[in-house]
Amino acid sequence: MKIKSTNVHPMAHRVSIHERNHAYKHHSGILWMTGLSASGKSTLALELEKNLFAKGYKTFVLDGDNVRSGLNADLGFDEKDRNENIRRVGEVAALFAEAGLIVIAAFISPYNADRDRIRQAHPNMFHEIYINASLEDCEGRDPKGLYKRARNGEIPLFTGVSEPYEPPLSPELTVDTVNLSVAESVQLLEDYVEKNFRQL
Amino acid sequence: MKIKSTNVHPMAHRVSIHERNHAYKHHSGILWMTGLSASGKSTLALELEKNLFAKGYKTFVLDGDNVRSGLNADLGFDEKDRNENIRRVGEVAALFAEAGLIVIAAFISPYNADRDRIRQAHPNMFHEIYINASLEDCEGRDPKGLYKRARNGEIPLFTGVSEPYEPPLSPELTVDTVNLSVAESVQLLEDYVEKNFRQL
Repeated sequence: MKIKSTNVHPMAHRVSIHERNHAYKHHSGILWMTGLSASGKSTLALELEKNLFAKGYKTFVLDGDNVRSGLNADLGFDEKDRNENIRRVGEVAALFAEAGLIVIAAFISPYNADRDRIRQAHPNMFHEIYINASLEDCEGRDPKGLYKRARNGEIPLFTGVSEPYEPPLSPELTVDTVNLSVAESVQLLEDYVEKNFRQL
Repeated sequence: MKIKSTNVHPMAHRVSIHERNHAYKHHSGILWMTGLSASGKSTLALELEKNLFAKGYKTFVLDGDNVRSGLNADLGFDEKDRNENIRRVGEVAALFAEAGLIVIAAFISPYNADRDRIRQAHPNMFHEIYINASLEDCEGRDPKGLYKRARNGEIPLFTGVSEPYEPPLSPELTVDTVNLSVAESVQLLEDYVEKNFRQL
């Protein structure tokens, strides 16, 4: 990406991240869920958000549904647009974390390089969570019929069928949604948050 | 903007905006501050954020400083890139409002059409606030020396010098920063928030 935005002079925020974390009684950061279509990302993200909210956490889900229809509606699904999709979401997620929230980002985000770029830009915020289900399992679930349409050639660019998926090399957490129920998976995620984000 | 993002299937958030507003004890929305460079947008936005945070409001400032260095670092200052800059910020601000926050967006945002587009996309969230100071006053302040450099031709695209600024036609609030002090201006903004965002 070429940086074109010059003559920008930062003015310090008057509310520090520490003040926000103190007021909200938890640390903030990015829970980045990556995995194949139908691996369970959105389901787990939305259940986790509900449970964390009920516990008083300030939290919000970013996913294809609320990002692809607005901010990134101008982007398609080829590699260049996927890169830009993930770049923008990473930056938005970082803004939410700076605002004091635990932001749950649920995106296929198939490329290691894209995810690593966010980690490098925001190393203290980024928690990579691999929502792990095999292609066979995801294709067997196929709740939206997308794999079927992709196999029929109706969706030309589809991760796992015509496009690669690169699993994380060293994620902070892996959730095996083939062998764990939704409830067990959500519990694993909640435990992770309680351990890593609860203000002491 | 061409919409390229298809095959996106919304999954409903399990936490409604009403639950968020109830928990945070205030309504959420976008305070969109528009005005010339040096009109006082960022100063007022950051002071307002500090005071609202101290009162328990969940709030965050989006401004050129935290957006131009990240999300929109790929955009310059010609009309097309300014349009896209404001479009993206509008969508990000809407996400913050959906998360339950009062987001304060401080951007020159010189074109009525760009601001109206955000209002039309998010009519219940959008509060347009005109930070009003004449070009003469702003150029007299010139705290960063930008007007001087623009007059010298060192900054080719600069609102008020070589690029137009279109004042809002019917803003929800106008803050006259020539005749009001910073403290008076912030008080006006706080009063507006207390009146329009406090949960009853």
